[in-house]
Amino acid sequence: MLKLYGFPVSNYYNMVKFALLEKGLEFESVTVFPSQDEQFLTISPCGKVPVLETEHGFISETSVILEYIEETQPGTPLLPADPFARARVRTLMREIELYIELPARQCYPEVFFGAKVNEAIKEKAQHELRSGIATLKRQGSFSPYVAGDTLTLADIYFLYSIDLARGVAEQLFSLDLMAGFPAAQALLDRLKQNAHVQQLYEEKAQSMSSFLAMVRKRLESA
Amino acid sequence: MLKLYGFPVSNYYNMVKFALLEKGLEFESVTVFPSQDEQFLTISPCGKVPVLETEHGFISETSVILEYIEETQPGTPLLPADPFARARVRTLMREIELYIELPARQCYPEVFFGAKVNEAIKEKAQHELRSGIATLKRQGSFSPYVAGDTLTLADIYFLYSIDLARGVAEQLFSLDLMAGFPAAQALLDRLKQNAHVQQLYEEKAQSMSSFLAMVRKRLESA
Repeated sequence: MLKLYGFPVSNYYNMVKFALLEKGLEFESVTVFPSQDEQFLTISPCGKVPVLETEHGFISETSVILEYIEETQPGTPLLPADPFARARVRTLMREIELYIELPARQCYPEVFFGAKVNEAIKEKAQHELRSGIATLKRQGSFSPYVAGDTLTLADIYFLYSIDLARGVAEQLFSLDLMAGFPAAQALLDRLKQNAHVQQLYEEKAQSMSSFLAMVRKRLESA
Repeated sequence: MLKLYGFPVSNYYNMVKFALLEKGLEFESVTVFPSQDEQFLTISPCGKVPVLETEHGFISETSVILEYIEETQPGTPLLPADPFARARVRTLMREIELYIELPARQCYPEVFFGAKVNEAIKEKAQHELRSGIATLKRQGSFSPYVAGDTLTLADIYFLYSIDLARGVAEQLFSLDLMAGFPAAQALLDRLKQNAHVQQLYEEKAQSMSSFLAMVRKRLESA
């Protein structure tokens, strides 16, 4: 059986878990935190989560795990069958990851963990976030889903990136990323009605204290 | 016929062009620079290159273009047929892009264009580059290619990321990314013997002056 390693506060872990749930697949979840321990590095070469254990071995990098699940597992498809339509969904996934999630991530230490992020890094992140949202406005369909009338992997990236990015933009830059983007807000509201999304929010809430304890411990010993 | 938009100094453009050449495909090249012009944004929603024009429309994001070419075009495969082996190649592509090319890219303004990059950004890039190379050492096969005995998309990411990253590390951090990594150096030497690689180096050299003129003009008007 597929085994998913990670922790419920991780947005990338939740992307994969949500896909597994939406596809109706059986899988086991194993809670692990990112780590540079030699043992963990044998299953995740850069020490990150999520990691998927398959009958053939371990796979890391969220987008790669999601593609592998699409290619090998039954259940509701989350990528279109037509190659050009599939390319469009993948472009949206990449744009959301590279130009929204990753810039926001530069600021997580300050927004979520009370650390200080250098002003130049924050300024760059703000510029990139504005540009990333502009790209998504141009490229997304939001009719009602990111790439059209069906839920795809692009919606999963959207759901698990945009809320965090919005939090960062609000707190650090007094900037509302959803301003003038009602279609994105409507999709976010719709996705939050999904039973699997709600289940993962609950799991996140329940595991938040153990996650924060882990972070504190690491910051103290760093 | 496929039409590839970009410019010969761009490493991402060269990744796609090299793949097209290795697969023996017919295509047309169109020189364009990244731009936020409204007209260009209609074919590239974030204004970047490369862009591939197909009979169905335009595709942006290098990894997505490469996957589309694999899925729809004839010629030498650059991804394994087996899903798990394919996942491994994709993980290597992503690791090289996210943990080597992107950190190095943060420093390109200082290394290549005489601008100044903030110290905090450089320090972060250095940390990430060290960690990215450590990941590649763990995950890569280099036997002799990145993922095994066949040239794949992972080699294309390697070839067009590692030289630039090495230049950044040497110039800014006096750090040799290839030190203690002879297998990677051997692969780089081998790839540089490839006739298509040599062709793209020549095209890059020939177009360097027009590229630098464009950069200067933009810096002056910024």
